[in-house]
Amino acid sequence: MNYNFSEKLRVMKPSAIREIFKSLGTPGSISFAAGNPSPESFPISDIKRLTDDILTNQPVTALQYGVTEGYTELRELVSRRLKTVYGIGSCDDDTIIVTGGQQGIELTCKVFCSEGDIVVCENPSFIGALNAFRSLGARLMGVPLCENGIDTAALEKILSENERVKLLYTIPSFQNPSGITSTLENRRAVYELARRYDIIIIEDNPYGDLRFTGEDVPTYKSFDSDGRVVYCGSFSKILSAGIRIGTLTANKEIVSKIVVAKQVEDVHTNVFFQMVTAKFIKECDLEKHILKIRELYRHKATVMLEALDRYMPKDVSYTRPEGGIFLWCTLPEGIRLSDFVSLAAEKNVFVVPGTAFLPDESEPTRSFRLNYSMPSDSEIDKGIRLLAETVSELR
Amino acid sequence: MNYNFSEKLRVMKPSAIREIFKSLGTPGSISFAAGNPSPESFPISDIKRLTDDILTNQPVTALQYGVTEGYTELRELVSRRLKTVYGIGSCDDDTIIVTGGQQGIELTCKVFCSEGDIVVCENPSFIGALNAFRSLGARLMGVPLCENGIDTAALEKILSENERVKLLYTIPSFQNPSGITSTLENRRAVYELARRYDIIIIEDNPYGDLRFTGEDVPTYKSFDSDGRVVYCGSFSKILSAGIRIGTLTANKEIVSKIVVAKQVEDVHTNVFFQMVTAKFIKECDLEKHILKIRELYRHKATVMLEALDRYMPKDVSYTRPEGGIFLWCTLPEGIRLSDFVSLAAEKNVFVVPGTAFLPDESEPTRSFRLNYSMPSDSEIDKGIRLLAETVSELR
Repeated sequence: MNYNFSEKLRVMKPSAIREIFKSLGTPGSISFAAGNPSPESFPISDIKRLTDDILTNQPVTALQYGVTEGYTELRELVSRRLKTVYGIGSCDDDTIIVTGGQQGIELTCKVFCSEGDIVVCENPSFIGALNAFRSLGARLMGVPLCENGIDTAALEKILSENERVKLLYTIPSFQNPSGITSTLENRRAVYELARRYDIIIIEDNPYGDLRFTGEDVPTYKSFDSDGRVVYCGSFSKILSAGIRIGTLTANKEIVSKIVVAKQVEDVHTNVFFQMVTAKFIKECDLEKHILKIRELYRHKATVMLEALDRYMPKDVSYTRPEGGIFLWCTLPEGIRLSDFVSLAAEKNVFVVPGTAFLPDESEPTRSFRLNYSMPSDSEIDKGIRLLAETVSELR
Repeated sequence: MNYNFSEKLRVMKPSAIREIFKSLGTPGSISFAAGNPSPESFPISDIKRLTDDILTNQPVTALQYGVTEGYTELRELVSRRLKTVYGIGSCDDDTIIVTGGQQGIELTCKVFCSEGDIVVCENPSFIGALNAFRSLGARLMGVPLCENGIDTAALEKILSENERVKLLYTIPSFQNPSGITSTLENRRAVYELARRYDIIIIEDNPYGDLRFTGEDVPTYKSFDSDGRVVYCGSFSKILSAGIRIGTLTANKEIVSKIVVAKQVEDVHTNVFFQMVTAKFIKECDLEKHILKIRELYRHKATVMLEALDRYMPKDVSYTRPEGGIFLWCTLPEGIRLSDFVSLAAEKNVFVVPGTAFLPDESEPTRSFRLNYSMPSDSEIDKGIRLLAETVSELR
C-alpha cells in the first residue's frame, strides 16, 4: 500500500550524526564525529558489583513496573546532589527521572509548544534537541553564539519581533557543538530577557560536571527566582550512556505536566538502572569518579589542542573548551565545508559538518565539530594532521 | 510565573491506573487494579547470570550509546521467533526494539496521524494507548467489542462515515481490559474493511504468548499481504516489565519513519537489557519459560473465575479469558459504578472502573477490570467475596 504519513513526519530527517555513527567502524578510520563518552569513563566493576547486589536483594523491585516519576530514592539523591553541587532546587521544584537527557528536552517542548510556537536555539546547537523541537511542530529560530555566550542583542531582537516565542533552549556549559561556556554576566542578561518577554528556558547541562579548567559558572537554575528554568541533567557522561538515565528539575506545576506526557511515551524509565545509579551515588564516590573523568578529558582536549596548534594553518580557527567533549573548528574563506568533509572522509577521518547543528540548515557555514573523548591520543594526533593536510589540499 | 501550556497538554490527564497504582500498598489492601505481571514470572536467577556474563565480557557495548533501531542480535532473534511462532514477517518487513510496547504504539500514531486524524479503538481499550493517541492530537472513535471481537458492522459504519480515519488500534488476543480474543473470521473481516477503506492496523499483542486454554488464533500480521499492519510486541509479560523492552514489526518504509521519530524521544532503548533479552532467548529456553507463566496464569484465572462463580450474584456478568491477565466484569442495572468502586475501596479492595478504558470517557458504563496476575490465591478469594458483598449492599 501507499503510506500517507503525518504532516510532522515529513519535516523530520534522521540525525546526521547517528547516521555517520552507523557507517563508522571501518578498520583504520579515525572518528572525531561521535558524541560518546570515553568507555574509560564507565565504572564497570562498581556497576557489576551493584548489579549483583540489586538482583540478589531487590530483584522484584528492579524488574517490575515502576512509577512514571522515577525511583524515589534516586530522585531524592539527585535533588540533594543538585542542591549541594549546583545550588539548584527550591521548595517549589521537583526532580524526576527521564529516559536520557533527550527525553527531558523533548517532553519540555511537548508540554509548552503548540504547532507553530517558536523555540529560540543557540546557533549552532545540539542536533537531537533541534530535531525534537521540529518533530513537535515548533519553529526554530537561531541566536548567534559568541565567545561569552548568547548574543543578547540578537536575542532581544528575536523576542521583541516574535510574539510566539515560548522557549529558549541553551547548553550554557561546554556547549554541544561549540565547546563554548557562557559567562555569569551573559546568563544573567539572558535570564532578564526571558523574564521581560516571559519565556521558559530549557537549561541542558549534560556536560556540566566535566569542567577541566577555569572556574565553575552558576547554572541558570541556581538563580531562577521565577520558576522559568527547566533543568535537564544526565548520567550519560558521568556513569553510562547506554543505560538512558536523565533527570529533569523544574517547578512542580511544570513537572506534573511532564509526567503526564512521559507516561504515554514509555510509562517509566527502566527501574533497574535507576537503582544502580542510586546505589552508585550512595555507596561509591560519584564526585571522585567525576574527577577522574575530568582528568581524562583534560588530557584528551590538551592532546587535540596541541595537535591543532601544531598542524593547522593559522587561518583555521577553533574554540578552546574548558570542559566537555567537543570543540568547534572553522575553515578559512574559500574552502567549501562539503569538499573538506568529503576529502577528509576519503582519508578515513570523520567529522560532523556544522550544517547539522544549524537551526536553519540552509544557512552557509564553514565550521565542523571535533570530538576528543573517543579517539586515542595517537588517533587524535594523526587525525588532526590529516585534517590539516586536507585544508592545504583544498587551497 | 503563570505557565501557558501547549494545546495538547490541556486534554491530557494522568492515567487513572497509574494513579491508583501509586496509592496502593496500604497493609491489608487487595488490589485487582494492577496491570503488572506476577513477580513469579521474572526469571531472576537467569537474568542475574546473564547480567554477570555481559558485564564481564561485553561491558563497553552494554554501557555505551547504541543505535536507534536496537541491538542487532536481539532484532534478529526476535524476527526469527516471530516468524517461527507466529508466522510474522515478510521480506518487506523490519523489526526494531522500542522502549516498551507503549513506545511502539505511540510512535506509530505519531508517524501516521496529523492533528484531527481519527484512530478507531476497541471500546473498551488500553488506557495507555488511548492517552498516547490523545496526546498526539488524534480524535478517538470507539467501536464496540463483542464476544467474537470487533463489531464489524459498527466498524464499517465508522469507516464509511469518516474520511479521516487513519488507524485502527486493536489488541486481538486476551484484550486489555476485556480479556476477549477475537476469532480468525472476525480478524479477516476487520482486515478486509481496513483494506477497503485503506487504513493502518496497529496490532498490539503484549499478552499473545500467555494463552492458557483453547487454540491459538493467527495474528493479523501473519496474513498482512498489504503491509498495513504494525505489530507491537513486548517482553514485559514474559521476561520483565521494568526493563522496558518492546518490539515493533512493520513494512520497512513505516519502520524507517518510526526510527526517526524514536530518535528524538530517547535516542535508543537501554542497550544492557537488549543484550540480556538476546542472551535469554539464545541461552535459556524462552518457550519453556513462557509455558511456566501460562501455567501460573491458568491457575490464577481459574481461582478468580471459581470465586466469581461462587460468590457473585447471577446478574453480575464477566468474561472468561483464554489467556492474558485480565477479565471484565459488568454490574447489574441499577448499581452505579462509581458507588461500587468507592465502597469496594472502603473495604480495601481496588478495581479499575471501566470509565478509564473508554475512548469517550463521558459514556456510561457499569463495567470494571479485574487483574488476577498480581494477587495471591487467598487474596483473590477474599477480594472477590468482598466485591460480591459490595454488590449486595448497593441493591
